[in-house]
Amino acid sequence: MRMYDLIMKKRNGYEHSKEEIRYIIEGFTKGEIPDYQMSAWLMSVYYKGMTGEETLELTNAMADSGDRLDLSRIKGIKVDKHSTGGVGDKTTFIVAPILASLGVPMAKMSGRGLGHTGGTIDKLEAIKGFNVAISEDLFINNVNNIKLSLVGQTGNLAPADKKIYALRDVTATVDSIPLIASSIMSKKLAAGADVIVLDVKCGSGAFMQDEVSAKELARTMVDIGNGAGRKTYGIITDMNEPLGCKVGNALEVYEACEVLKLKNLEKIDYGIKRLLEVSLTLAAYMLMGAKNQSIKTDDFNDKDNKALTYEEARRLCEEALTSGKALDKFAEFVAAQGGDADMIYNPDLLPKAKYIVPVYMEKEGYVASCKTSEVGMVNLILGGGRETKESKIDLAVGIDIRKHIGDFVKGDEVFAYIHADDEGVIEEAKKRLVAAYKLSDERTFPEKIIKGIIE
Amino acid sequence: MRMYDLIMKKRNGYEHSKEEIRYIIEGFTKGEIPDYQMSAWLMSVYYKGMTGEETLELTNAMADSGDRLDLSRIKGIKVDKHSTGGVGDKTTFIVAPILASLGVPMAKMSGRGLGHTGGTIDKLEAIKGFNVAISEDLFINNVNNIKLSLVGQTGNLAPADKKIYALRDVTATVDSIPLIASSIMSKKLAAGADVIVLDVKCGSGAFMQDEVSAKELARTMVDIGNGAGRKTYGIITDMNEPLGCKVGNALEVYEACEVLKLKNLEKIDYGIKRLLEVSLTLAAYMLMGAKNQSIKTDDFNDKDNKALTYEEARRLCEEALTSGKALDKFAEFVAAQGGDADMIYNPDLLPKAKYIVPVYMEKEGYVASCKTSEVGMVNLILGGGRETKESKIDLAVGIDIRKHIGDFVKGDEVFAYIHADDEGVIEEAKKRLVAAYKLSDERTFPEKIIKGIIE
Repeated sequence: MRMYDLIMKKRNGYEHSKEEIRYIIEGFTKGEIPDYQMSAWLMSVYYKGMTGEETLELTNAMADSGDRLDLSRIKGIKVDKHSTGGVGDKTTFIVAPILASLGVPMAKMSGRGLGHTGGTIDKLEAIKGFNVAISEDLFINNVNNIKLSLVGQTGNLAPADKKIYALRDVTATVDSIPLIASSIMSKKLAAGADVIVLDVKCGSGAFMQDEVSAKELARTMVDIGNGAGRKTYGIITDMNEPLGCKVGNALEVYEACEVLKLKNLEKIDYGIKRLLEVSLTLAAYMLMGAKNQSIKTDDFNDKDNKALTYEEARRLCEEALTSGKALDKFAEFVAAQGGDADMIYNPDLLPKAKYIVPVYMEKEGYVASCKTSEVGMVNLILGGGRETKESKIDLAVGIDIRKHIGDFVKGDEVFAYIHADDEGVIEEAKKRLVAAYKLSDERTFPEKIIKGIIE
Repeated sequence: MRMYDLIMKKRNGYEHSKEEIRYIIEGFTKGEIPDYQMSAWLMSVYYKGMTGEETLELTNAMADSGDRLDLSRIKGIKVDKHSTGGVGDKTTFIVAPILASLGVPMAKMSGRGLGHTGGTIDKLEAIKGFNVAISEDLFINNVNNIKLSLVGQTGNLAPADKKIYALRDVTATVDSIPLIASSIMSKKLAAGADVIVLDVKCGSGAFMQDEVSAKELARTMVDIGNGAGRKTYGIITDMNEPLGCKVGNALEVYEACEVLKLKNLEKIDYGIKRLLEVSLTLAAYMLMGAKNQSIKTDDFNDKDNKALTYEEARRLCEEALTSGKALDKFAEFVAAQGGDADMIYNPDLLPKAKYIVPVYMEKEGYVASCKTSEVGMVNLILGGGRETKESKIDLAVGIDIRKHIGDFVKGDEVFAYIHADDEGVIEEAKKRLVAAYKLSDERTFPEKIIKGIIE
């Protein structure tokens, strides 16, 4: 086999065999296939795409390029969730405790933020003492004991993906659906969960701006997951404005705690309602997936052998929330990784910024649209995000948005609060935040928060 | 400017500005743009193409990347020809002496053969003593004195093209019309001629197998040449069987001498007739181009100020041939570069192979088609061609084909003679030669030898 012929084959639109995909991924990972051939091949994939079989094999080959996490010491069906990245997305802090409180084990690896999107690991570090770098033994034990543990990405997970992504990043071959899907799914497969729920964000703050692409990406990833023997769901969710009201590391933990404290799921603020709806949908699919897989494999901790419908799963998740069990589970999880659990019950103890500055719009009107990634950039300007992987971040800063698409903003109403530590960046942050939104005289109705379910 | 953005721009099908093209070519030549970005860009060009303006600027930028030959010391309008490569193409040895005998100066740089195509320089070395590496002074003086000199490619001509071609060669981005056209034309522009006639081969022995692609390539190159201020013609010629009868280095010089010795252009063998037609067409366009440019620039050696028509130019070329002037000029040219001119008048003195073996077809029938590149490969097997740039070649070997498309081959008729020095390869050569041809019960008529003129 020669890489030259394989580039030519893909360039001319033909399908690779499994052996050919393995040859490419293994050869490139070992350094036997040079960057310049790989980038020509990647550009051909960008134009010609890949079939489902090719994409699955590509994902498997990348997952096989390094270690696979051994979760066999964890009892039961393990679940995982993944978000394709958005602004203000704190669903993990709501979903994971709900699942764990229902007895579903979640052994999660998460990443740090980059650019306009935040990272779960950074956000958790806003909790005093929380340790994201615990030993593998403690990680596994915590999952067995309290059903939830969360660590930063460790070990040699899918090194092929890391190497390919670095090349795509400099050769304009990032936005290819089979390449995005295989990159995400190779790490999910290597991370070992049995049930995977994917939150595919769609809109101005997401990688996929339009619904057609988001659905195609979700379909591709779901087919990979199911093809690899994991029960996988793709939930397409709206990212045409930040999720919830708060953007920023400590602020997002704060808002998650607010949701976990809800006793009544009616009559809540519209921003929170969107966050809640995404969280409950993800949680319900995870629970349903775990339960129904356990019946197949006879491996769940409750052995009633009765399949769950989505509606039943959703009701269980809502109860876990309103009963306070999920909040207690979150506190338990935080404490088990050295964090200050008081901060969960009393989120006002979380790090606070020096300045909390109200932001007003320049005119009255209905909130019509939001350049959501710009809101993420405002957090970055404030010091809450990373420009490069090496940037240090300020966990206390961020934005608290009081108005959402469809809301009317009066001239004297506060549109948002900026939480800042550096006085010097406040004006720029305000200006960019205001510019990120469009107001209009006529009311625009927000998009549906759940745009589709792919299974 | 960032290469990343330029890859993205071309990937998305947009047109580059002149500055962007210069940035890419200069950056890559200097080593500032890495191979992996260049190959991604080249693959995008493969898919998205280039406009005429982009292709012209690409060519100019590559021509400017190294030295440009200074032909200012040569009097008159300088002409050049270029063939895109075929099998049995010995037209240069006929065209160049015709032109020189008519007073048109030709200062030609030629290449060596690779793969199934032969090279002018190799063929000339079949003549005892012929030196292709003469000094620049002798080169210029010879052109001024006898109107013709021919050397191997020297100096630092279009190094950007060399570097880009090497990358295209390993990344499956060779067969892109703007890239092929700019590669050829950058060297032609740097080589300094005022009038360029391009012999664009088309068919089973050519790079361009179909007429549409050949015409598109010719149109692209002619537009570049004219756009750069050189009068350029593209002649599309048939390469669905070897040109003439003989393939091999000394054999091709032999056949060129046979043509140069013709006193009567009627009643000649069909194989020779095809060769003659291509040669006279090329020569006539070169003469016409030179004469008509000289009127514009007032710089021709005869100052009658009368434009030539193609028919007039063609008649002059035919006279130069049948009068023997072209043969004498070829001998003069050979002698001026240290070669044995006796070999021109008596080509039986040229190197001869040890074995001359008749080849018969397996059945009777009309010659219907030929995989022409396979005939070139037979010459390579015999030792007459180069597998890699480092291969040593045997100048005496080759093939002498007695039958052409449309001819009837009787069972006992010799189809061809194989000229071999190594007995061990004769059987394989015979087998592959026979397999390269298809015979049929019904007569197929050959394609027109001149398929079109692009100007």
